[in-house]
Amino acid sequence: MRTQVAIVGAGPAGLLLSHLLDRAGVESVIVETRSREYVEARIRAGILEQSTVDLLREVGLGERLAREGDVHRGIYLQWPRERHHLDFVDLVGRSVTVYGQTEVTKDLGRAREAAGQEIVYEVTETAVHDIDSERPYVTFTDADGAAQRLDADVVVGCDGSFGPSRAAVPDPATWERTYSYSWLGILADVAPSTDELIYAWHPDGFALHSMRSAKVSRLYLQVPNGTDVAEWPDDRIWDALAARLGHGQDGWTLTPGPITEKSVLPMRSFVQQPMRHGRLFLAGDAAHIVPPTGAKGLNLAVADVALLAPALAALLRDKDPALADAYSDTALRRVWRCTHFSWWMTTMLHKSDDPFDAQLQLSQLRWVASSTAAATGLAENYAGLPFGY
Amino acid sequence: MRTQVAIVGAGPAGLLLSHLLDRAGVESVIVETRSREYVEARIRAGILEQSTVDLLREVGLGERLAREGDVHRGIYLQWPRERHHLDFVDLVGRSVTVYGQTEVTKDLGRAREAAGQEIVYEVTETAVHDIDSERPYVTFTDADGAAQRLDADVVVGCDGSFGPSRAAVPDPATWERTYSYSWLGILADVAPSTDELIYAWHPDGFALHSMRSAKVSRLYLQVPNGTDVAEWPDDRIWDALAARLGHGQDGWTLTPGPITEKSVLPMRSFVQQPMRHGRLFLAGDAAHIVPPTGAKGLNLAVADVALLAPALAALLRDKDPALADAYSDTALRRVWRCTHFSWWMTTMLHKSDDPFDAQLQLSQLRWVASSTAAATGLAENYAGLPFGY
Repeated sequence: MRTQVAIVGAGPAGLLLSHLLDRAGVESVIVETRSREYVEARIRAGILEQSTVDLLREVGLGERLAREGDVHRGIYLQWPRERHHLDFVDLVGRSVTVYGQTEVTKDLGRAREAAGQEIVYEVTETAVHDIDSERPYVTFTDADGAAQRLDADVVVGCDGSFGPSRAAVPDPATWERTYSYSWLGILADVAPSTDELIYAWHPDGFALHSMRSAKVSRLYLQVPNGTDVAEWPDDRIWDALAARLGHGQDGWTLTPGPITEKSVLPMRSFVQQPMRHGRLFLAGDAAHIVPPTGAKGLNLAVADVALLAPALAALLRDKDPALADAYSDTALRRVWRCTHFSWWMTTMLHKSDDPFDAQLQLSQLRWVASSTAAATGLAENYAGLPFGY
Repeated sequence: MRTQVAIVGAGPAGLLLSHLLDRAGVESVIVETRSREYVEARIRAGILEQSTVDLLREVGLGERLAREGDVHRGIYLQWPRERHHLDFVDLVGRSVTVYGQTEVTKDLGRAREAAGQEIVYEVTETAVHDIDSERPYVTFTDADGAAQRLDADVVVGCDGSFGPSRAAVPDPATWERTYSYSWLGILADVAPSTDELIYAWHPDGFALHSMRSAKVSRLYLQVPNGTDVAEWPDDRIWDALAARLGHGQDGWTLTPGPITEKSVLPMRSFVQQPMRHGRLFLAGDAAHIVPPTGAKGLNLAVADVALLAPALAALLRDKDPALADAYSDTALRRVWRCTHFSWWMTTMLHKSDDPFDAQLQLSQLRWVASSTAAATGLAENYAGLPFGY
């Protein structure tokens, strides 16, 4: 097989890249280790930045998003006895939209299918070759067990932190931060008890009330690393959520419901740079991981791809390497902004072992809730900086 | 001896409190373990917030300050190859003034002397008694070796972190954070090489170019805890300052000069609460210590006293306890804001052992230098929130 751009990974980054390249007249083939069903059902993030929404609309992916996505003006930030609304629209003129990554992936999958895009699912033994040459290629074994080779002008790794692309970069610089806590996340078949997300600081640990739709709630609890979901029967989860989210406070109630999914999510900050080596480009989780507080992961992948697609189009169609040469540095500016913001949101809201941290967190939360400058700082990061920042 | 308010400590907090009480018709006596010469020569902070300057002017202490103080519109924030000016006046309409704590102390000392204020210097064995009663008193041994007793309606501890007042509060809550670095500070008889302070992030460690006057520079280097000044001959200091402050970069030069003072300053965050127990009130360092990054220590002491003086006047003159009862909670709001800000400035600028921290610091610095919201957040804290925040 031969194509212009070989994309490793059919998650939202890979699918969107292929969609954008197609619109720019550049062809691509995607290879993916999982099945399409698995990729489209995988529970991930659910908050889209303004720029992500604008881009999806602009490239013909906005129809269902407009119909089913829920525009939020901001978030609630709370700690015991206080709940404050931060209105991003008032502060920075930008909003966020609740629309699950699964839905974005499905929309992209349908659009790619309609366009006749070749996506090779359920491959194994994927490997990236000759990225220092102008003739890189990807090898893999297809679902029928046949060895395959995909020749390309460029290979793009959209295959996450554990895929082969990242590892193919020789001697990268890497930075990593692990956290001493994880999130226990649930999906529940119950209408959300809030109109917008509640980020709750609590002496027992952080809690987050999010949602997927008018009928499905998504909630999270800070738990120690290594927590087994078996330790958390449904009643214990709802009790902890009620306590941390302030059930009964100022007449607010948390309505529990049937839990349909329960899992423990570890938290990590990770950056690998550069995001390009020769003819291999990295985008999304392949180059960087953020903890979920602040909802940057998916949006950062979209921002990478929004930079990379025109850069590759210019390189392959117009033989102009300027944007491709600038890609890594340009993308990393936003990556580090979001890495810092995600770390900041995470460390401001999660219980640590040091009681001094709790006081610093509370003084910072009070400041964010009372200072327009501080609230604007949070809002511009959360609602998202313009692409190209 | 008998007075209305017994003040322990003749640093700026104690002297200013006595000055403000006098203006409100409340009498006080100050006891101090050091000599007046020592107190007035002690090298300390040198940056006054807008509110501190306004207060000193308002109470007749602004004459020399207006003549000799140097109004700064902002600060420089820099890292290798980048120097950015943050203009507090543009951002928040407030400035800061360079005027040494030694000068404030001298002005206060003269004003108290002119008013016939009783200040008992060089006392030993100071102790605070019966603070749970309405008849508290202070005992001490005077410079002649005679045991003395000072009866009062109220005792105020302005005697710093190691004085007897803080320790007289039974079962306080305390928080502490130590840092793995100190500052090596110098005074040099040379005109400052900058018009406003330069806060410099550098891979070798933090550096700060400050000043005392048009002819005296004050500079600091981050050094490991336990550093002996003997390890730092003058040449080594100037070489390190030149490297960290960017000598030669964009034509900027650091001019060295004779070093007249050299010392190592440890860094610590500390808060004790409540700031009142019975008839004992704490102000300034007696209740809280901040690391020097951000120049909050003296200003926070002034803010405490600005709250406490009217509270004590209302309590003792008008028999109205409302402000005195609110003092601790009101003061602590600002204390925690400044504690957080000082910690934030400190941890943003000082080299740590974790390379991920350096990247977080740089991404934060780039954000502060490029986002009006972030710059405003720094400016409102640095130039100082209004008293009573």
